[in-house]
Amino acid sequence: MVGPEIERLIQLLARLPGLGPRSARRAALALVKRRDGLLLPLADALTAVAESVRTCSVCGNYDTQDPCAVCRDVRRDGSLLCVVQDVSDLWALERTAAFRGRYQVLGGLLSALDGVGPEDLAVARLVERARSPDVTEVILALPATVDGQTTAHYIADALAECEVAVSGLAQGVPVGGELDYLDDGTLLAALNARRPV
Amino acid sequence: MVGPEIERLIQLLARLPGLGPRSARRAALALVKRRDGLLLPLADALTAVAESVRTCSVCGNYDTQDPCAVCRDVRRDGSLLCVVQDVSDLWALERTAAFRGRYQVLGGLLSALDGVGPEDLAVARLVERARSPDVTEVILALPATVDGQTTAHYIADALAECEVAVSGLAQGVPVGGELDYLDDGTLLAALNARRPV
Repeated sequence: MVGPEIERLIQLLARLPGLGPRSARRAALALVKRRDGLLLPLADALTAVAESVRTCSVCGNYDTQDPCAVCRDVRRDGSLLCVVQDVSDLWALERTAAFRGRYQVLGGLLSALDGVGPEDLAVARLVERARSPDVTEVILALPATVDGQTTAHYIADALAECEVAVSGLAQGVPVGGELDYLDDGTLLAALNARRPV
Repeated sequence: MVGPEIERLIQLLARLPGLGPRSARRAALALVKRRDGLLLPLADALTAVAESVRTCSVCGNYDTQDPCAVCRDVRRDGSLLCVVQDVSDLWALERTAAFRGRYQVLGGLLSALDGVGPEDLAVARLVERARSPDVTEVILALPATVDGQTTAHYIADALAECEVAVSGLAQGVPVGGELDYLDDGTLLAALNARRPV
């Protein structure tokens, strides 16, 4: 009824995170309606990204240049190395503009269930970088989930041979968090890690 | 930090209905990650739609051919003409596979606030089609909102000169609807339009 071209567009849009079949149909219709204002610019932007964006060979970030902007930036502190699960986490930390060190993207988390082992992640690459005398501290910015903490422990063990301090993100009450909406685990962690005011 | 190409992609994705700035960033990342499996096919699909899809000169539907598949289909009942606000409503009715007549897309609703008058909609085109001796009934499948009902009344008046029956969609309890979750207006309409079992 809608023609194979539009049907194919709907199917591809539905594979984006956050879009289901129904919202993909709405998005496709919005694109067809705004051919010159949205559809063609989006097609151009996708082609530009496909042609220009590559993975940074140093840290695993995505950028149009290799090494990426973070790794090229000489004002950054090369002694701090922040380990993240994915590029999205790197972007989230960059948005805070609070961290001025460098990154290592793992590309996932250890998971016995999903069959993800250390050889599937950039652990060897991380240890290699941590061996450099420039690096003094490795910050494990990994999710506070079972897989995230398992991975953090594994990496801390792997880094034992390197002469670096290993730290993790603080756990506690999120900014703006109401106590009675927080889960027990978070409250317990916040209580145990209490600090003088 | 993410490069102008990715930033532009995120901005364009955020203009799709259903995607905000945050989910657009997630979608862009998913696209970069799956370059060959998703990014390039989506770019191709967008280009194909831009090149092939046009507005049907008869009813206002989108299709790769003009007239569209619905208007070309000789098995359809030319005596029934269903008036819809937008192409998305036409698609929704087609998904039910219950209506075998033809359509007229209005392209919007009358709205004094938004400055939309009858000349902005396909009302003249609808009256012209309704004048044809083949057409016996015009079904107003317009939303049950103030603007939708205003538009329906205006169209019913405009069709008074044509020798066609004018009908509207039934109002009542939606299928699967629990009474205590329905608004008063819907319950009142369902009660007023009650029918023998």
